[in-house]
Amino acid sequence: MSASLFPNAPDKLALERGEALAPRFNADGLVVAIAQHADTGEILMLAWMNDQALKLTVETGVAHYFSRSRHELWKKGETSGQLQILTELRVDCDQDAVLLKVRPQGDGGACHVGFRSCFYRVWEDGRLVEREEGAGS
Amino acid sequence: MSASLFPNAPDKLALERGEALAPRFNADGLVVAIAQHADTGEILMLAWMNDQALKLTVETGVAHYFSRSRHELWKKGETSGQLQILTELRVDCDQDAVLLKVRPQGDGGACHVGFRSCFYRVWEDGRLVEREEGAGS
Repeated sequence: MSASLFPNAPDKLALERGEALAPRFNADGLVVAIAQHADTGEILMLAWMNDQALKLTVETGVAHYFSRSRHELWKKGETSGQLQILTELRVDCDQDAVLLKVRPQGDGGACHVGFRSCFYRVWEDGRLVEREEGAGS
Repeated sequence: MSASLFPNAPDKLALERGEALAPRFNADGLVVAIAQHADTGEILMLAWMNDQALKLTVETGVAHYFSRSRHELWKKGETSGQLQILTELRVDCDQDAVLLKVRPQGDGGACHVGFRSCFYRVWEDGRLVEREEGAGS
């Protein structure tokens, strides 16, 4: 992707070991973003970011994503109150995925279905069972 | 995607609340997979799965992925010894992402660069700093 708000890593070494945030956006201009609860370690959701969303997240300390269904920048929680305050941002070895440690605001949820995390279903004995993490086993 | 090893959810309710594992593979036939350490909660890596990789993961209890660079099924750790034993598999609300809780075997690592996790860099004061989780702050 050209015309990004971030630089391109000149080589593999810079990509993997460099100090520059040089995300490898896909053909749609997006990188994957994992939101993990800063305190519990629970995975809250997986979403996508374009360069603008990533820049805003880094600059404001509040998670921004790119909605693939609505094709627009998406400040998570703007309407629901479930803002995600960033405590740490990590990037993976080949910089096509970012990991956000966040503290969810509002009611503490992240999923539009009503659960705290989008990963509220476990595969068990050949079927999906609704059971949030930390809810016993 | 047609001709998948998994069913398609007939509607939104089945997709979000159903018992059937009905992954929504993307145009390349893939879903995102997050590997999280079963004991520490650390995010180890992000990878992709086609229907075969997901089926094998569920059936064998060992994480399989699809290598987008090599365009082939990839049993993680087959050469490195860093097999990932599955302890739990979760799926997100719209079933286009799976979460694997795993116990890494071998030297306990997951990243080809040599770190335990692929997310070994933190964004800090405008640059990426190499610091694994649990390595102090």
